[in-house]
Amino acid sequence: MKRVAVVLSGCGFLDGAEIHESVLTLLALDRAGTEVTCFAPDQPQAQVINHFTGQPSTESRNVLTESARIARGKIQPLSQADAGLFDALIVPGGFGAAKNLSSFATQGAECDINPDLVRLVKAMHQAGKPMGFICIAPALLPKMLGVPVRLTIGNDIDTAELIDEMGGEHVTCPVDDIVVDEEQKVVSTPAYMLAQGIAEAAQGIDKLVARVLVLSE
Amino acid sequence: MKRVAVVLSGCGFLDGAEIHESVLTLLALDRAGTEVTCFAPDQPQAQVINHFTGQPSTESRNVLTESARIARGKIQPLSQADAGLFDALIVPGGFGAAKNLSSFATQGAECDINPDLVRLVKAMHQAGKPMGFICIAPALLPKMLGVPVRLTIGNDIDTAELIDEMGGEHVTCPVDDIVVDEEQKVVSTPAYMLAQGIAEAAQGIDKLVARVLVLSE
Repeated sequence: MKRVAVVLSGCGFLDGAEIHESVLTLLALDRAGTEVTCFAPDQPQAQVINHFTGQPSTESRNVLTESARIARGKIQPLSQADAGLFDALIVPGGFGAAKNLSSFATQGAECDINPDLVRLVKAMHQAGKPMGFICIAPALLPKMLGVPVRLTIGNDIDTAELIDEMGGEHVTCPVDDIVVDEEQKVVSTPAYMLAQGIAEAAQGIDKLVARVLVLSE
Repeated sequence: MKRVAVVLSGCGFLDGAEIHESVLTLLALDRAGTEVTCFAPDQPQAQVINHFTGQPSTESRNVLTESARIARGKIQPLSQADAGLFDALIVPGGFGAAKNLSSFATQGAECDINPDLVRLVKAMHQAGKPMGFICIAPALLPKMLGVPVRLTIGNDIDTAELIDEMGGEHVTCPVDDIVVDEEQKVVSTPAYMLAQGIAEAAQGIDKLVARVLVLSE
């Protein structure tokens, strides 16, 4: 049975992990018969957004505690993630990837990235293990890997330029498809960077999970 | 295009709507080409549970605001739900159904049920429109409908006895199947009352959504 690590970044697309993308990832991985372990950083969220009004709230929430809602309590601090225990890694999107896992939302190409995530991603990469990044999360790859990497975040020109600036090679991609960097063993899909509904997001995510598992063989 | 109302009860299985069940419902409805409108009561949650520790928190959260995370902001107050606008209704589970939509978790057969939900469910029932209830949510049906109704919450004997006490007829059902009351046009499935993983929950929920849509023809 293949073991896959999934890194969450909160619970809700405006301030955390995109819930649909996260659940679709867990669904595809469970259907494929893999053993999934969820991780999230044990740190305060950068923001809490009221998802009914879309406005910032004065509340304070913890990324690990909120991610545990998606993981039904079965989740561990990202600092404890050991690349040696896993065959593959998947990171769903949502603003949590750009606000909690990194400062990409506010600092763009100059962003900081969570050091536990950098350590995990570097170790997986060095071990030749495949990784899947969804939605905005692929934008973090060039800085983390330190090598040129082909990836997609859909077709947003400004974000694509930032990715190229950071050393990536952005490839335009429709919502129902994936971009695969065979050499770096990295797969990406636009999901809610483009999706008009959950069924569209599922098309790309199902393909991403399937390809990541093939690359782990 | 069929129009389906989905009633959420928060965001997280311990104090709100079960996230996987809610997302699987939205996925099946979107794949079937329906137009979905989400609703949730605009009221404080009965509890906030830390999903990492499983322990109660001193925080206060609003059911509508938290449900909006699952609905990506596209949600309306339950008080505004008009049965005349919909072809079918689906209610996912999670403790939110037993704590926020009702007091079933603490009061059992003597529970109160949110009056806006009762009004909506009665109106759908009287109009001969089908409804799907998932996980623990079916337990609320006998009181709301006021007629004998066949349903399942899986195989939990204590809960099944309470349902019979409230005027329902509980039918034991495995996780991958549904119970259909053709006369009352009510479909139910155990989901996380029994599911060991999300793929199991999806089997029953996919069947439930398909049957509800057939009954709406």
